Amino acid sequence: MKPDLPKGFQASGIAAGIKKNNQKDLGLIYSTVPATVAGVFTKNQIKAAPVQLCMNRISSSICQAIIVNSGNANCCTGDQGMKDAELMSAAAAKRLGISSDLVFVASTGVIGEPMPVQTIEAAVPHLVKHLSPHGVEDLARAIMTTDTIPKVISKTTEADGLPYIMTGVTKGSGMIAPNMATMLCIIATDVQADSAWLQTTLSQSVSGSLNRITIDGDMSTNDTVLLMANGLSGVTIDTTEKKASFRKSLDALLQELARMLVKDGEGATKLVEIVVENAPTEDAARRIAETVAGSSLVKTAIFGEDANWGRIMAAVGRAKVPIDPDRIDIYFDDVQMAKYGMGCGKPAEAAATEVLKKPEFTIRINLNQGSGRTSMITCDLSVDYVKINADYRS
Amino acid sequence: MKPDLPKGFQASGIAAGIKKNNQKDLGLIYSTVPATVAGVFTKNQIKAAPVQLCMNRISSSICQAIIVNSGNANCCTGDQGMKDAELMSAAAAKRLGISSDLVFVASTGVIGEPMPVQTIEAAVPHLVKHLSPHGVEDLARAIMTTDTIPKVISKTTEADGLPYIMTGVTKGSGMIAPNMATMLCIIATDVQADSAWLQTTLSQSVSGSLNRITIDGDMSTNDTVLLMANGLSGVTIDTTEKKASFRKSLDALLQELARMLVKDGEGATKLVEIVVENAPTEDAARRIAETVAGSSLVKTAIFGEDANWGRIMAAVGRAKVPIDPDRIDIYFDDVQMAKYGMGCGKPAEAAATEVLKKPEFTIRINLNQGSGRTSMITCDLSVDYVKINADYRS
Repeated sequence: MKPDLPKGFQASGIAAGIKKNNQKDLGLIYSTVPATVAGVFTKNQIKAAPVQLCMNRISSSICQAIIVNSGNANCCTGDQGMKDAELMSAAAAKRLGISSDLVFVASTGVIGEPMPVQTIEAAVPHLVKHLSPHGVEDLARAIMTTDTIPKVISKTTEADGLPYIMTGVTKGSGMIAPNMATMLCIIATDVQADSAWLQTTLSQSVSGSLNRITIDGDMSTNDTVLLMANGLSGVTIDTTEKKASFRKSLDALLQELARMLVKDGEGATKLVEIVVENAPTEDAARRIAETVAGSSLVKTAIFGEDANWGRIMAAVGRAKVPIDPDRIDIYFDDVQMAKYGMGCGKPAEAAATEVLKKPEFTIRINLNQGSGRTSMITCDLSVDYVKINADYRS
Repeated sequence: MKPDLPKGFQASGIAAGIKKNNQKDLGLIYSTVPATVAGVFTKNQIKAAPVQLCMNRISSSICQAIIVNSGNANCCTGDQGMKDAELMSAAAAKRLGISSDLVFVASTGVIGEPMPVQTIEAAVPHLVKHLSPHGVEDLARAIMTTDTIPKVISKTTEADGLPYIMTGVTKGSGMIAPNMATMLCIIATDVQADSAWLQTTLSQSVSGSLNRITIDGDMSTNDTVLLMANGLSGVTIDTTEKKASFRKSLDALLQELARMLVKDGEGATKLVEIVVENAPTEDAARRIAETVAGSSLVKTAIFGEDANWGRIMAAVGRAKVPIDPDRIDIYFDDVQMAKYGMGCGKPAEAAATEVLKKPEFTIRINLNQGSGRTSMITCDLSVDYVKINADYRS
């Protein structure tokens, strides 16, 4: 089933000539009426111009369109970069016949190169012309960088006897770290909702999904999550029950998008959930999970299908959380590899090696010293990750 | 010139059968008289049994021999691991005819597997028989894991009209992180020195050398630096001048060993010094240098000989140090790539690309916002790093 857009939304994606390879690189999403908007942005102190533009405009809580490009991050581009982001916004606004304050901008790609803003301006009429209620996959393709597949999910929920739709588009697939674990993500929905509540809900939902994944530990300068809610389904999210149901749908959508991001992580061959349980605190669990999920040695062992639990122990021990090593149990799926900090022997190792052959599995670290729990999703570190990133700009 | 040992020291290294491939895996260093000892150990909370043994014994400040093995880390091995470390020490002590309190132990290799202690005990007579004043390279070979070359340096300094020698042996070459940036390092010298002063001096010297390098950001459970001073040169380090001169020699020795470690880092093809200058504080400089030096994206770009300064900016921005991005200058050797946070254009890029072709170069990040300065040594992240670590235990 092809994912579709919520009521009143249209999208498009075209090859404007920003990328060298004639692939789609410019996208647009548009709502026929102004939408309430919420956003989450990179915590990197070096923020690309379009991120700064969005952070300024979001104070109005209203957005009607987002223009997005890949191939150039418009980051470390100074005053000209900000002017270029404004020009992109203005070009789209003019063609759409709306105020440029209502057009947000997102960019992804190489950092530090001037934006080919004339190329973009020249392509905008074409981009607007292609807007379609069925254009979401074109949009998803237009924001891809090293992604190998477009990432779109659509969910339908019912409230007040009416269906409403939530459609999410995202792209990875490098510079993915726990603290804003995505490059770009746009969610469109046709509910009506209070803007402050929508912002809180989006932030919380991102914390439990896009912020719980890691690919390479590098935090992007361009990470942007924007949620637009235009109200055209006729559903208003105003009761506790409807709020809970919306949140549940949003969590499911973002968690699924997060998994898609990691699965398509640069060079990734395995998707691994790291579960840390019975830690002194939840924060301790999180620190340990992040350290294990980010360890090059753990990730290369996973790539090599090697149940090297000693590297997991070493990562746990350097996570800057006081722990008692002699109480730690480690499991690969249901196979226990370490008990009270020591190995469970050759049969366990043989069984765990079978688990590691699977494309998806769980590494569970039970600290047996509290009740803090968290989980994270990571991938392996492969030969292809290095090749992709060594050749990225060439 | 073959590096030699200081007066009264002997060393050996043999193939005892701990490793599968018939390579040297058991080493010994011995002083004919008890030596003053200083040590620095891993800050990983999960400490291998031999590390715990050394940390206990070092309170006496006396050591006469160190037995070292590769192929097994004796870590996550519980009470039996500690017994095994004691048995290794006792076997060497018995054969040397000294108290086992005077024999320290270090191990490196796979974590979480039982020590083949009988194999080691059976080999000890052979090991002791091979002790020789010219045996330091055999010792260096016996502690290698994924290292491709043995690492030994010897330095002669003069004091009171007498020469004294300082010989250092080390091994890497993975699990190398700033906070105890080595696996094993043994320094032998024939000076006499106060033990408390020696400990402080070693700690400070390690901070400026072995703790200023990174290969993969993973911190080992077995990191151990031990310095033995037996006094047989007749030189006593007792004046301010002699202390300064000794410290200078030790710094030079450890800095050179640190460079050798990074140069032989797993899969490394480039050695890169990261200099951060004019940072708000020295600690800020250190955090930024560590973040840049540890970034997978920076390291893969170096492997790809790509002057991708945008990735350096992105790493600076996530180092959790408040900075003004618009004041940052970036240089590759003498080529300025970024000025006030923006790129210097194509000619600079072309010149920088030439710098990246060199096997060794400097990346200098001038924050222009203070006077804090530090430097770190790192290497690239190559396809071979992944291959080495995916196949490590097979």
